[in-house]
Amino acid sequence: MENEPSLALVWNTFTGYQRTAALKAAIELDVFTQIAAGAATIDALATRCAAAPRGLRALLNHLAVDGFLTRDGERYGLSATAAAFLDRGSPAYLGSGISFVASPMIVDGFTRLTDAVRRGRSAVPADGALAPEHPVWVEFARAMAPLAGMTAILLANLLDVEHAPAWKVLDVAAGHGLFGITLARLNPKVEVTALDWRNVLAVAEEHARAAGLGTRFHPLPGSAFDVPFGAGYDLVLLPNFLHHFDVPTCERLLAKARAALAPKGRVVIVEFVPDDDRMAPPDAVRFALTMLAGTPAGDAYTFAEYRSMLAKAGFRTPTLHELAPSPARVVIAEG
Amino acid sequence: MENEPSLALVWNTFTGYQRTAALKAAIELDVFTQIAAGAATIDALATRCAAAPRGLRALLNHLAVDGFLTRDGERYGLSATAAAFLDRGSPAYLGSGISFVASPMIVDGFTRLTDAVRRGRSAVPADGALAPEHPVWVEFARAMAPLAGMTAILLANLLDVEHAPAWKVLDVAAGHGLFGITLARLNPKVEVTALDWRNVLAVAEEHARAAGLGTRFHPLPGSAFDVPFGAGYDLVLLPNFLHHFDVPTCERLLAKARAALAPKGRVVIVEFVPDDDRMAPPDAVRFALTMLAGTPAGDAYTFAEYRSMLAKAGFRTPTLHELAPSPARVVIAEG
Repeated sequence: MENEPSLALVWNTFTGYQRTAALKAAIELDVFTQIAAGAATIDALATRCAAAPRGLRALLNHLAVDGFLTRDGERYGLSATAAAFLDRGSPAYLGSGISFVASPMIVDGFTRLTDAVRRGRSAVPADGALAPEHPVWVEFARAMAPLAGMTAILLANLLDVEHAPAWKVLDVAAGHGLFGITLARLNPKVEVTALDWRNVLAVAEEHARAAGLGTRFHPLPGSAFDVPFGAGYDLVLLPNFLHHFDVPTCERLLAKARAALAPKGRVVIVEFVPDDDRMAPPDAVRFALTMLAGTPAGDAYTFAEYRSMLAKAGFRTPTLHELAPSPARVVIAEG
Repeated sequence: MENEPSLALVWNTFTGYQRTAALKAAIELDVFTQIAAGAATIDALATRCAAAPRGLRALLNHLAVDGFLTRDGERYGLSATAAAFLDRGSPAYLGSGISFVASPMIVDGFTRLTDAVRRGRSAVPADGALAPEHPVWVEFARAMAPLAGMTAILLANLLDVEHAPAWKVLDVAAGHGLFGITLARLNPKVEVTALDWRNVLAVAEEHARAAGLGTRFHPLPGSAFDVPFGAGYDLVLLPNFLHHFDVPTCERLLAKARAALAPKGRVVIVEFVPDDDRMAPPDAVRFALTMLAGTPAGDAYTFAEYRSMLAKAGFRTPTLHELAPSPARVVIAEG
């Protein structure tokens, strides 16, 4: 915490949404990929991105000040951050994530944030995104796949999947499916069942095909609350799912997961998990506001809260794990 | 510029709009003023701000991570920044500014930013805000008065108004009117004429009354392009106005300003003025994107561009001045 008043902090926060919009426009116009491909001037980019020079000049200079571009006279280049994460040709590309993180649906929740704080729940009518087969989850599955792909590898390493026996894995609300698919990709004995809405599973199926999983990938369409899970799983994955719901709903879902486990099976929860005092890590603390803005009763739950929910659902020996450099954390418990 | 790729920079920019929304909600709920008044806990604030504890918990923890609140156990306090700028009881309060800087009108321009970059002009239908008597300028006059009040004092010092003779001042597109009113408040010989839409002038008139200007304040309602300015002014102020228009329109307006000057009279332009290479200062460079997003042909003009416009309008000896710690700069020229 600074001890001097900072006018810059106030102004930067007043205008924070403008930096999101500038980055979103640049990703939509494919500016970073075209610069990586050699288009270094406004005129060259105007042709490649089908944009007006006047518009590009304002956008590129904004991005240079924001740390995404370098500039030498009239020639623009990628900063180290843009080269790693925003050029579609980079293996660590995750620019598509902005089309979910700053999607109209999530933005709408934040537009109504004052009302949400007054009510203590989302002020978005009908809590739209939790409706069956809502198309936003297809967008989510596509947009967040690159970010999730990186986290999924970190999770696979944490679980030491390469030395695992023939695990049977259930990936609940799989979305892009990458948490389960990555486990099966890194160990040819692993089989994975991916549960999600049928329209979303189409995306996971693409990823399973690309990973060469063949018959080791089993789609299970429907609602996590209604569809029978089956039984005998060594791992039940709950990645970025419980935060949408209130505690009793989470406990019900955890009990259902436990009933589907084989002996010695484990539940694996991937989430933003703030410390018990909710003072760190920053992104996990902030994430509670996204849940307030967008859901009726969701939250960024602490490990203490997960421990309590897991105990009520019959789990034992819960443990908390970091996935650095990802901001995600993992809670694992035995069934 | 960092040399290491920063995932944090990408994520912070993806979610920048959420920090704007959190601060806007806190200002609308009067959180900072209530904390300054002694409400330190979520329960106390729930009563004072008429908000839900669950909503406040998510909001306050977000604001603590963002640098606006301190937290000691269950007790929240103001950071130095919030105490100076966000408590309505502080003389430097400028929280209201967010209701213009993040107003639906300006946000709408940024929501359509990709289109604006493609076109090279605002993608907002009908370029709404430049229409006669648009109510957003009343909102602007009220919301931006605190920020402008600080800048106006810096300008008055730059002009050394306290040692000036009986200046006759014209404040064009006066809005809150504070640039002219502050000159008259600090020197009882100064008279000020404020030109703006009639609905906006009502706000300037309130400020003139509060400053005790009496008959030294003259409202001049209408459009800066249509209403005759009169003549014999020692100063014509153009604060934050020229950026809305293209170069020929600015030149026309400058020529009209020059024709209204007394001998040795000066034009005084207050603006975000980027360096000629548009690489600094950051907020002035960024401001060009706000003009792209929201106007047909406006811009953050450089001093070189103002020099050229002023020469074409017949002005001499243009000079550029800083107004630190405000990000605004001032261009002054002789008629």
